Amino acid sequence: MKSKYDLKSVACIGCGVIGAGWVARLIENGIDVIVHDISDKTPSTLKKTLENAEIAYSNLTALPRLNRGKTLIVNSVAEAVKDAELIIESIPERAELKHLLYEEIEKACREDALIASSTSGILPSKLQKHMKKPGRFFVGHPFNPVYLLPLVEVVGGEKTFQSTITKAMEIYKSLSMHPIYIKKEIEAFVADRLLEAIWREALWLIKDGICTTAELDDIVRLGFGLRYAQMGVFETYRVAGGEKGMRHFLEQFGPCLKWPWTKLTDVPDFTKELVELISSQSDSQSGDLSISLLERKRDANIVAIQKALKANNWGVGQNLLNYEQKLKKLASANLNAEAQLFDGVKTLLRRVPSDWGDYNGHMNEARYLDCFCEATDEFMKIIGCDEKYVSAGNSYFTAETHIRHMRETKIGQVVTITTILIAGEGKKMHLFHNMRNEEQEICATGEHMLIHVSLETRTACPPTANVTKKLREMQSRHSKFPRPHGLGRSVGTTREAQQA
Amino acid sequence: MKSKYDLKSVACIGCGVIGAGWVARLIENGIDVIVHDISDKTPSTLKKTLENAEIAYSNLTALPRLNRGKTLIVNSVAEAVKDAELIIESIPERAELKHLLYEEIEKACREDALIASSTSGILPSKLQKHMKKPGRFFVGHPFNPVYLLPLVEVVGGEKTFQSTITKAMEIYKSLSMHPIYIKKEIEAFVADRLLEAIWREALWLIKDGICTTAELDDIVRLGFGLRYAQMGVFETYRVAGGEKGMRHFLEQFGPCLKWPWTKLTDVPDFTKELVELISSQSDSQSGDLSISLLERKRDANIVAIQKALKANNWGVGQNLLNYEQKLKKLASANLNAEAQLFDGVKTLLRRVPSDWGDYNGHMNEARYLDCFCEATDEFMKIIGCDEKYVSAGNSYFTAETHIRHMRETKIGQVVTITTILIAGEGKKMHLFHNMRNEEQEICATGEHMLIHVSLETRTACPPTANVTKKLREMQSRHSKFPRPHGLGRSVGTTREAQQA
Repeated sequence: MKSKYDLKSVACIGCGVIGAGWVARLIENGIDVIVHDISDKTPSTLKKTLENAEIAYSNLTALPRLNRGKTLIVNSVAEAVKDAELIIESIPERAELKHLLYEEIEKACREDALIASSTSGILPSKLQKHMKKPGRFFVGHPFNPVYLLPLVEVVGGEKTFQSTITKAMEIYKSLSMHPIYIKKEIEAFVADRLLEAIWREALWLIKDGICTTAELDDIVRLGFGLRYAQMGVFETYRVAGGEKGMRHFLEQFGPCLKWPWTKLTDVPDFTKELVELISSQSDSQSGDLSISLLERKRDANIVAIQKALKANNWGVGQNLLNYEQKLKKLASANLNAEAQLFDGVKTLLRRVPSDWGDYNGHMNEARYLDCFCEATDEFMKIIGCDEKYVSAGNSYFTAETHIRHMRETKIGQVVTITTILIAGEGKKMHLFHNMRNEEQEICATGEHMLIHVSLETRTACPPTANVTKKLREMQSRHSKFPRPHGLGRSVGTTREAQQA
Repeated sequence: MKSKYDLKSVACIGCGVIGAGWVARLIENGIDVIVHDISDKTPSTLKKTLENAEIAYSNLTALPRLNRGKTLIVNSVAEAVKDAELIIESIPERAELKHLLYEEIEKACREDALIASSTSGILPSKLQKHMKKPGRFFVGHPFNPVYLLPLVEVVGGEKTFQSTITKAMEIYKSLSMHPIYIKKEIEAFVADRLLEAIWREALWLIKDGICTTAELDDIVRLGFGLRYAQMGVFETYRVAGGEKGMRHFLEQFGPCLKWPWTKLTDVPDFTKELVELISSQSDSQSGDLSISLLERKRDANIVAIQKALKANNWGVGQNLLNYEQKLKKLASANLNAEAQLFDGVKTLLRRVPSDWGDYNGHMNEARYLDCFCEATDEFMKIIGCDEKYVSAGNSYFTAETHIRHMRETKIGQVVTITTILIAGEGKKMHLFHNMRNEEQEICATGEHMLIHVSLETRTACPPTANVTKKLREMQSRHSKFPRPHGLGRSVGTTREAQQA
């Protein structure tokens, strides 16, 4: 989802797990945030959440991210909201507290400010009841961890302007989220109704001793959780129903709904015994892992799933693709700004994500070739060998590669590649990539011989006239650059012999 | 989960989505299966499922898989079960049909055969009621797609022997599954109780017009589905509760359960209108994607999630790790059987998975270096540089790499690497890898110079005495092999010049 909305100033009131998650997502998207919370733990909660978000995002993408927005914690609601165009409320789920806060906010905020509540279930109509300008109020219900999960439920109350909903949708898209507008307001909206249903049933299963919390969690994550993470409820059943489609499935499955399979009657009494049963099982399930560590594991898993589904262009992976598209445009603009350099064209800009590391504590050698390979692709685009060219049945295959490692590259470092065309005559293209770190030191080089091929016959053939022309122009420019250090070197040549 | 159980002969009675899924999982684990179903669509259902499983598994792992078991479709229950040690029933969910089938099975099967039902909810006590030998009966409830989801709920009835349960657990582990023994039998067991709860609530949300099926699915897969896929229900809330733990979370969350948030009263009437509403929404949601295509997408997504979580050693990823451990042992045994070859030691055996391909329709160049990198790791282990050696603070870093591509490598091909030690003196180790396809043609070579380093100072240092000794021994053997073709070559040298 793309958005042209350019959000600039946000106030977050309430900075617990959800509020701090909002701050993390906002600043990751380059927006400055002013924070207010009555708790004296706010600075530490915020710090921890921002650290977790930093770790998660540094692994989510290898593209250079936006410059992070700034955070400022202030001591009063009035100070926080006075210049904000959007005010996000994430305080405890008590309507009377929220009413009091909104009164305070409306006294100090801008005329045109929007006010959003993170409530997970209270009706927006109820929340906006006493407001002076209820038209600007809406619910934007996010999901923990807010900085990683793209979903946000958008719900308006009776008095909410339709223009407010439209703006809200655009704002969330601009934050790389996937807003869903719930058109009829009901308590708990959609997600929490589903969550409550499953939670109640889970409590009964534990209370009745059918299984333990660890067994139930395994049953979820090794079974239907894997279906929910990518297709949800209805599409999963659609597929299970086979070629005859959803109607057939419903007709088959319909009768089963009348079986006495769930505890419909009531919620279990929330006795001390039940609390103790669940808590002790949960303690033994998670063993020695602290909550902080579990949070990091959870984030790493959600990041990994997003990246995995990105490769399939599916579900949450499409969300990540859109986000990277945005970052790529930026990176590309940065590359073009300084495109012609003393040693070639700039073809890559990446920040090394944590899953590129290996047991030696640095970037794995195979990832260097991933980078050189991407740089070659970029160079091919520059000379006209783009997607269209390839789908027309022409391409370059790499015949030979030589990589030299000069300096270690660590997780989190930014690397750039500049590419020089050594020769581009006939079927052959000889490239040399210099990979540099932030200090402009060369950390590795990649030298490649590519052969132009027909993808149909899989044999060598000359490139098209257009590519040949661009290659010639490029070579006449690049032949003026000094020959790169290490060119033509073979494995085992001593440095001395080569430098001589 | 590891198992020593060596299952040999299985009969599958009933070959719909679940039955065919069982066949796929069984033969993928090297077991022959005899199939019987009264439907004349059985051959086509089975064929389609086995094709889907083949695609999924070829992407799940790059390790060479087990030799697939054989399938045989027969015309009678008696013929199917007569030699089977395990009989899996997956016919429609009607107790009276199952009773009749069990009678037929018991007349023809072995004395010591185990009989498992795939029922997703009927009590095993009810199913085994009329059996002659009910002690050998149990429920093994799997999840669609059975060949990919590791979960199986194991439930015994009143008359089931404990020894039957023990054997069942071992059998499922031997099939790389994660069996969970549900100790108290209740209708629908655990998973389907949770699924029913969520399904009922989902139906109300659609019926009441709160959201569409597409919106609900997005709410699941972009929100809590990503949590369920890796932590389940309780651990997710444990983390959300923060450092104060589960007790604190329950005390906070407890009161919310009394809010009127779910439709506890009853299931919606399953009217024509409701069926039409859901079906038409589902049709427009999935657009032009056929069920066959959706099945493949689902599988590809579940495979991707399993691989993603494998890298994090978490949840379903641990299951994949265990499976690959088993395959690795086998591959390693194969390597060792022919360890010393004319051109070095065998260091790698892989089948190219589909996600190693690129836009040129063959294995991406960076994946060659992944393979050479793994082969180098294997070689390091052979000379004593194993995990222990690295944790003690010593390792080899690659300084230089030269790759030559001779033949295209396609998805699904098996490649092997043999490694020759060119030189191993002092801090330097010079390796040459030959990568071959099934026809023993060299498709690529990798030449590498590695430097021994201290992981503490990050500078070069000599290896330990043990490694030095092993390197010397290896070199004295390998120096007798002919020097590999292409050694010492640099990028751009013509083939002629090199061969001269």
